[in-house]
Amino acid sequence: MRQALHRLTIETRGKGLTDISRPIIDWTASQGIETGLLTVWCRHTSASLTVQENADPTVRADILRFFETLVPEAAGRYAHEDEGPDDMPAHLRTMLTETQLSIPVAAGRPVFGTWQALYLFEHRRRPHPREIVLHLLGE
Amino acid sequence: MRQALHRLTIETRGKGLTDISRPIIDWTASQGIETGLLTVWCRHTSASLTVQENADPTVRADILRFFETLVPEAAGRYAHEDEGPDDMPAHLRTMLTETQLSIPVAAGRPVFGTWQALYLFEHRRRPHPREIVLHLLGE
Amino acid sequence: MRQALHRLTIETRGKGLTDISRPIIDWTASQGIETGLLTVWCRHTSASLTVQENADPTVRADILRFFETLVPEAAGRYAHEDEGPDDMPAHLRTMLTETQLSIPVAAGRPVFGTWQALYLFEHRRRPHPREIVLHLLGE
Repeated sequence: MRQALHRLTIETRGKGLTDISRPIIDWTASQGIETGLLTVWCRHTSASLTVQENADPTVRADILRFFETLVPEAAGRYAHEDEGPDDMPAHLRTMLTETQLSIPVAAGRPVFGTWQALYLFEHRRRPHPREIVLHLLGE
Repeated sequence: MRQALHRLTIETRGKGLTDISRPIIDWTASQGIETGLLTVWCRHTSASLTVQENADPTVRADILRFFETLVPEAAGRYAHEDEGPDDMPAHLRTMLTETQLSIPVAAGRPVFGTWQALYLFEHRRRPHPREIVLHLLGE
Repeated sequence: MRQALHRLTIETRGKGLTDISRPIIDWTASQGIETGLLTVWCRHTSASLTVQENADPTVRADILRFFETLVPEAAGRYAHEDEGPDDMPAHLRTMLTETQLSIPVAAGRPVFGTWQALYLFEHRRRPHPREIVLHLLGE
């Protein structure tokens, strides 16, 4: 049994979903581990992870719209406003989605379903560099 | 340290919660691993996982009603409608719950609390066969 | 490769967020494992886990207010009322946040980001002792 750690920096372009499946699958494949467990950790509280459909891009547009409605940016609604009107909603949207995902690896590849992709979900308006830690354990 | 992988197919009956604790506990017990970590991965984007109360069935009814209200099926609300009015809400409900859960194993058994059960949450109206991957690591 | 299991009991004071990063980091450090994976499991369905900002306390106040609005306690709204008006909302708030988190460990420490803390989120009005299971795997 072996393990490996890796840090990935993703430059986001403000609010939106960035598909990070490819770098994650490629790094896993490069480790020479056939069977194991891959963990993905997002080191932020205003960006998060989610597994969603990789096909129709309107799904991503609907997701953004849904979260704007569910957790609105609204002046005077939140006590925490120092870092801008998009900061507290960003924290809440992070809480409702994922900071971590662990996926089994078989035949050297995370076992994503046919329609699954792993996205980094940026919740702030401005672009940010986001640090993702990958941990792989197996043999 | 050893590991084991398993695929479970659960036939859902349309929208609702299916308790999958039993097959998961039984498979874990059959692996002869005393202490370890069990990971459950759902390979879909319109069905998800959740840990909830295993006692009063009205809890499940309340959960279904709550998600119908929080993420309504509503004509014209979503851009992604090709796969039916229940598809985009299914994606959003999946995002708000879990695609993956990892639970420590002690004495050959996942350490669920007394009132915890692990459910597969089907979000589509029609029955679907759903693929769940189990990964167990330990000794 | 080695593993260790630990149970932590946290006495909550009713609804609110308790920072449990310190006991988790300390226990991890005491295990002499440099690189690995730490899993945190909450054995309840009316208390949950979340990773959130560790700095401005108004963030925690905003989180509490947000969940009171998103999942209201409201007489007659839920079928499951036997255990009090705060019980069914507690289950739903648990579903929307986390029961489990797994975090990579590097240099003997979970790789939390600068602003991340791990909170136990009590959803019931009354204080409760809450059981958290920790599992660490690595070398």
